[in-house]
Amino acid sequence: MADLDAFLQEDNFSRHLGIELVEAANGAAVARLTVEEAHLNIHKTVHGAALFALADVALEAASNSHGVVAVSINANISYMKAVSSGLLTATAAEVSLTNTLGIYDIKITGEDGELVAVFQGMVYRKRQRIE
Amino acid sequence: MADLDAFLQEDNFSRHLGIELVEAANGAAVARLTVEEAHLNIHKTVHGAALFALADVALEAASNSHGVVAVSINANISYMKAVSSGLLTATAAEVSLTNTLGIYDIKITGEDGELVAVFQGMVYRKRQRIE
Amino acid sequence: MADLDAFLQEDNFSRHLGIELVEAANGAAVARLTVEEAHLNIHKTVHGAALFALADVALEAASNSHGVVAVSINANISYMKAVSSGLLTATAAEVSLTNTLGIYDIKITGEDGELVAVFQGMVYRKRQRIE
Amino acid sequence: MADLDAFLQEDNFSRHLGIELVEAANGAAVARLTVEEAHLNIHKTVHGAALFALADVALEAASNSHGVVAVSINANISYMKAVSSGLLTATAAEVSLTNTLGIYDIKITGEDGELVAVFQGMVYRKRQRIE
Repeated sequence: MADLDAFLQEDNFSRHLGIELVEAANGAAVARLTVEEAHLNIHKTVHGAALFALADVALEAASNSHGVVAVSINANISYMKAVSSGLLTATAAEVSLTNTLGIYDIKITGEDGELVAVFQGMVYRKRQRIE
Repeated sequence: MADLDAFLQEDNFSRHLGIELVEAANGAAVARLTVEEAHLNIHKTVHGAALFALADVALEAASNSHGVVAVSINANISYMKAVSSGLLTATAAEVSLTNTLGIYDIKITGEDGELVAVFQGMVYRKRQRIE
Repeated sequence: MADLDAFLQEDNFSRHLGIELVEAANGAAVARLTVEEAHLNIHKTVHGAALFALADVALEAASNSHGVVAVSINANISYMKAVSSGLLTATAAEVSLTNTLGIYDIKITGEDGELVAVFQGMVYRKRQRIE
Repeated sequence: MADLDAFLQEDNFSRHLGIELVEAANGAAVARLTVEEAHLNIHKTVHGAALFALADVALEAASNSHGVVAVSINANISYMKAVSSGLLTATAAEVSLTNTLGIYDIKITGEDGELVAVFQGMVYRKRQRIE
């Protein structure tokens, strides 16, 4: 996971949002975000795109955890519950993996463990290893 | 559109990312983002979640442009092309509208007009008007 | 479940395809399909739309199992593996449920338990009970 | 298109449902279905999976119309309007095409031109030509 850590530390966008990668190995990953003012929408709840970003970082970490470069080609998110503060956790699990494609389920939960959003992502695996 | 403008100016998240709303009326909207360092991923191309955020702002503006509060329940994005600089434009068009649900297609194009990503969003319309 | 059984026995389309409902209760359901010539595509593997139909019946059964009429508004399917014969099983699990919306994950597996497709469906719940 | 015609005439599943391919060329296609008893669900409206099948045939025809074998990897459908009789038409348009991936929008309309469902499909293009 050392390589993956380095790999993700260079991700400007997730740093700009304050998203933190907690773990990533064997097709699974966990990412976290503490809600701040900058993440809120007009209703003063966390913006859907901030939730998407959190899930997307977990997807990126999980899908690249095998050491082969994987890039997203499609993602689908459904929102369950508005949340306005606290620590959000995105947990990614590998649903399917072939030489060329991977599919991942990501669940975002709030501080009380309640489900906030579900995300499913598909990645295309390149023939290139992560250095 | 005056009300919608005010409505969206209070969107902290899109301001934090530098997303600008260009127009919004009658179920359509245009939003723009000039690519900066903060939007890049580990491959030095625009992060998928930054593209999602841009499309999501266009969705928010288009779906709320009728003066009735609309909240996203599902979104799907497919990525076509990596892009690393320039001005990105998201254009939202209304596909379907009922009293309770709306569906919108959003296309993101780069400076040369090339298609970067396509996004489809579904909103739930509340019985509440935008003030 | 007696009412749901009757409810689903009137589903002409699933009968036309030979899809069988095995169980449905408390937001979960299992449906089955034995592959026949009529389900095959040009590659002599099960047509993607036949897999979708199998998952959709499981979604219908699971989402209506609470006794409240639920209608699909969106579904997403990803295909993992071509399959050309045997018994296919779709297993539906409830991801989220509110008064108005429900989200369900459906997995389709082949005879050896291998994952063939994953499906996620969203339903709108009416204020009407199943008679 | 002669080859594609032959290619699709061997599609057992679409024949079983009565889906007819009207045209297919240059990444576009049109398919049709006349609603019969066998297509109806418990509400006596066309089953969502029958709508999906109609759109899927248009996707298959459009994505294979370039003469290169294309297989679906993901599809998303949103339902707009229940319909219980008449002629349904699915019209597929190519949104994006690369050497490995294609994305297609399919709209299903009823006899009066009203929108019944929208479908977006992604295909993986093999290195194999259609014979």
